[in-house]
Amino acid sequence: MALHGKGVAKGIAIGHAVIMGAALLEVKHHLVSVDDIESECTRLDQALQAVAADLDYIKNNLPEDAPIELAPVLTVHSLLLADPMLASETKQIIRTHRYNAEWALSTQGQMLASQFGQMEDEYLRERASDVNQVIERVLSFMSGVKSFDLKNLPATCEDDFPFIVVAHDISPADMLNLREKHFAAFITDAGGPTSHTAIVARSMHVPAVVGMKNVRSLVRDREILIVDGDEGLVIVNPSPLILEQYRQKQRQYQTEREFLLLQKDEPAVTVDGVHIELEANIELPEEADAALEMGATGIGLYRSEFLFMNRETLPSEQEQYEAYSHVLKTMGMDKPVTIRTLDIGSDKTLHNEATVAVNPALGLRAVRYCLAHPEMFLTQLRALLRASVHGRLRILIPMISHLHEVYEVKRYLTQAQNELMSEGYAIGEKVELGAMVEIPAIAIAIEPFLKELDFVSIGTNDLIQYTLAVDRVDDEVVSLYDSVHPAVLRLIHNTIQAGDRAGKPVCVCGEMAGDTNYTKLLLGLGLKSFSMHPAHIPEVKQIVRHAHTNVLRTRVARTLNHGEIIDLDAVNA
Amino acid sequence: MALHGKGVAKGIAIGHAVIMGAALLEVKHHLVSVDDIESECTRLDQALQAVAADLDYIKNNLPEDAPIELAPVLTVHSLLLADPMLASETKQIIRTHRYNAEWALSTQGQMLASQFGQMEDEYLRERASDVNQVIERVLSFMSGVKSFDLKNLPATCEDDFPFIVVAHDISPADMLNLREKHFAAFITDAGGPTSHTAIVARSMHVPAVVGMKNVRSLVRDREILIVDGDEGLVIVNPSPLILEQYRQKQRQYQTEREFLLLQKDEPAVTVDGVHIELEANIELPEEADAALEMGATGIGLYRSEFLFMNRETLPSEQEQYEAYSHVLKTMGMDKPVTIRTLDIGSDKTLHNEATVAVNPALGLRAVRYCLAHPEMFLTQLRALLRASVHGRLRILIPMISHLHEVYEVKRYLTQAQNELMSEGYAIGEKVELGAMVEIPAIAIAIEPFLKELDFVSIGTNDLIQYTLAVDRVDDEVVSLYDSVHPAVLRLIHNTIQAGDRAGKPVCVCGEMAGDTNYTKLLLGLGLKSFSMHPAHIPEVKQIVRHAHTNVLRTRVARTLNHGEIIDLDAVNA
Repeated sequence: MALHGKGVAKGIAIGHAVIMGAALLEVKHHLVSVDDIESECTRLDQALQAVAADLDYIKNNLPEDAPIELAPVLTVHSLLLADPMLASETKQIIRTHRYNAEWALSTQGQMLASQFGQMEDEYLRERASDVNQVIERVLSFMSGVKSFDLKNLPATCEDDFPFIVVAHDISPADMLNLREKHFAAFITDAGGPTSHTAIVARSMHVPAVVGMKNVRSLVRDREILIVDGDEGLVIVNPSPLILEQYRQKQRQYQTEREFLLLQKDEPAVTVDGVHIELEANIELPEEADAALEMGATGIGLYRSEFLFMNRETLPSEQEQYEAYSHVLKTMGMDKPVTIRTLDIGSDKTLHNEATVAVNPALGLRAVRYCLAHPEMFLTQLRALLRASVHGRLRILIPMISHLHEVYEVKRYLTQAQNELMSEGYAIGEKVELGAMVEIPAIAIAIEPFLKELDFVSIGTNDLIQYTLAVDRVDDEVVSLYDSVHPAVLRLIHNTIQAGDRAGKPVCVCGEMAGDTNYTKLLLGLGLKSFSMHPAHIPEVKQIVRHAHTNVLRTRVARTLNHGEIIDLDAVNA
Repeated sequence: MALHGKGVAKGIAIGHAVIMGAALLEVKHHLVSVDDIESECTRLDQALQAVAADLDYIKNNLPEDAPIELAPVLTVHSLLLADPMLASETKQIIRTHRYNAEWALSTQGQMLASQFGQMEDEYLRERASDVNQVIERVLSFMSGVKSFDLKNLPATCEDDFPFIVVAHDISPADMLNLREKHFAAFITDAGGPTSHTAIVARSMHVPAVVGMKNVRSLVRDREILIVDGDEGLVIVNPSPLILEQYRQKQRQYQTEREFLLLQKDEPAVTVDGVHIELEANIELPEEADAALEMGATGIGLYRSEFLFMNRETLPSEQEQYEAYSHVLKTMGMDKPVTIRTLDIGSDKTLHNEATVAVNPALGLRAVRYCLAHPEMFLTQLRALLRASVHGRLRILIPMISHLHEVYEVKRYLTQAQNELMSEGYAIGEKVELGAMVEIPAIAIAIEPFLKELDFVSIGTNDLIQYTLAVDRVDDEVVSLYDSVHPAVLRLIHNTIQAGDRAGKPVCVCGEMAGDTNYTKLLLGLGLKSFSMHPAHIPEVKQIVRHAHTNVLRTRVARTLNHGEIIDLDAVNA
């Protein structure tokens, strides 16, 4: 039997299924008497504190060889748990409805998770699963039940095959436990490409297939499974022939991976001598370490949203300064750090702002939102400028469509600079300003923008969405989302060419940059700077080091000039 | 005092305010006993029938000089009234909630109006006001009160100034009454540029300013008003100096209008001899007469949506055939008729389909919706092909972004053709197929599309929306909606140039085509075919007949090449 999901961490694993119990405990529902309300609130507080302390302990005592991605993920969970709204709103439910603490907490958790679940940004949407995992951890503590009990599981089965985890969802802290047992792969009902299961699995180089919906009801405990993380495929009880085929594939994969990691510190230079920048996309300051570890030559995109999410007050200038400084210090004075100003909008809410726009993707998002909230924006710019002394800062502005927006941003930047200087702060000597190219308008008429900016970064995900008028999270039209539509390739090509003419660097930081299917195509379009999830850097580098850019440019140019559909196989041949 | 609204019909009027009573009557709310439910339902049916008969009478006895736009508007109201859902759902409310008939009807009316009010398409959104007007007419009949009582109003005031209507909203049937009194202008709280108040006022050449929100509370009865329909301005109690300035402006305007109408049958040829097509956008078959009256050389856009709206079943092939044939016969064998296939989507509902998409503008709309509902699409194509024998039919496909969509449409067209031929139907010899250019992707890489199509039509409204990622009905970002953004002009220019190279006609049918501010700019971009509301044709023609296209092309080209912001005043100088 072959089951299909989303392959989120590459590789092949062969092993026995270990079915994990339902992640969300059966919560008991009962109403409490008026006299017991305060003791329920106390019980809630104690559980929240205990779990917070537990997470801190795990985080501060990570084994030396723990995946480098795990610390930031645990930070996210701590942040969610420490949000004062979580306690206060749950207590509100206890007091208003007289729900017992567990019931009130799961109610509040569902509300939070559904808020995240409706967000447009894929990364933020995945945070619904973090909420569920955190809530579960607290509920689990309150009930005294451990959700995963692995004590008696040996490292491998009698036949020496390893175990493969089959679960509804896996929290990163559970992942640590699972890791000690050296599981060979993860498959889950929930999750998507940017879920933490996916991120951590990739950093552990363990294959993972997620989003399988009801895999736990289709697989029995200890059945033999083949997990193909490349294809998003799970084969249950394979025939001996299939099994042997996959064993070979697995050996080949291991050899390749070892080879790639050996080349981690080699420069990314093509056969015909073109130097390519391979930078990293990160979401949390701590991830800068992983970026260095994978050989990133800089941070091409640090999304500043997480500092702002899921809290009652805006982050202070000092708090932002510390986060930005951490990344800049980690990367040192040589490697550029590109920090994107807040990309948030009417759909993805600072705390408790309601969704109102009929088409949030065409509404008050990102720089539009920032320019409508100048005090918040100025605070971020001040924090960025103060941090700039610690490294090579590039400030990246999202959702620019009009030149007057660039002028406005520059005015605020000058204002922040003047304020800081009169207050006696030092500012880095060369702070660069750039814009995301993610709205068709800027890609179509980019020349005047390049005059005003130091660099641009193409966000292919949104650029494709607007160019094709296709919301890629809308199932009804997702089949029309086409990364290699001739119009998309022309916009990328025009932007790169205009950048070359103006002597301004052009980076691609959308998903295309980290997908090895598109590496040669992007090189053929003339791209010299890629930014991607750190885990993808070694594979992309491998392709770069074997590419002839001149050959690729010729191959791509012909199709492009006719506006025809490109043959990706021919480009990759 | 100067008040601002939307100027929807040009011209200057000076006169005395006549404040009309609240359009929506105070509906009495009471619960009825179980025994009275059926008599309430009967009372409702009688009122609906009486008002329907009244509307039919008005429509069939229109005075010879009634504005030509009025008949189709009355048809819309009859259609709304005849919708069996209106009676059945209102009775449902009477039976379930025991509301009296008036209360139930106003409840159902609000629900319907709010459904229309949430639609994305501006034209359909305005239909909310038609619903309100129809419901009011029925409620007015049930209460025995006439909403407008004009019996005792003289044609002009003692000082010989005419009267100006100040109302919350005006229904087209009321408009007929108002017209007999020769009112000089209309100003209303409600309405927008595509409201019927606007459409009818334009066809009567009476200035109108709508969307003034609470004008009735700011103007007193019989106060002197100046209404400036060009600027959307209403001046209350003007000084003698201002009054004299506007008298002059008014005289000048009248002279110009008379001059324009004299040239109605002159060809639209520029000074340097370029023939320009000036075609009409229509929404209902009956509007084809108005198009001819204004000198249209064809129908550039007939929106087929109205046939499909607000009914329980889809329109039959025969019903569609008759509507399409009516337009083709009216325009004759020489003038092309461009009929756009259904442009409907997850936001704007066939009956009772719920809104689900997070970003409906980026979802399953128009041709995407049609290809997902092939039976419905085939019925429309069959009706179109059958009607094609009566004139020069051009079939226009909205929201094309991918070449494979064109191939799919062609397959369905061939299928419809084969079916009809084997059933013995005749089909016009030369039916043309075209696509809307309203998604950036097709404008950016148009060459392969032009190979497959006979013509294209640029829908500037949506093209601007997607290119700039700005929803123009979203107040928070509407200031970023810019018709002359360099990227927008480049896309229009590229499309026109590619059309010239391929020998395929390119039309613009968005609002820019009917706005005289943009006529010279579009000529400078090389446009040779405009389609607009019939009322705008004479003014646009006037500009065309005085334009030098070579001069304009040179003026526009320079700015365009640099991607800079165009100086519209310099173009129009």
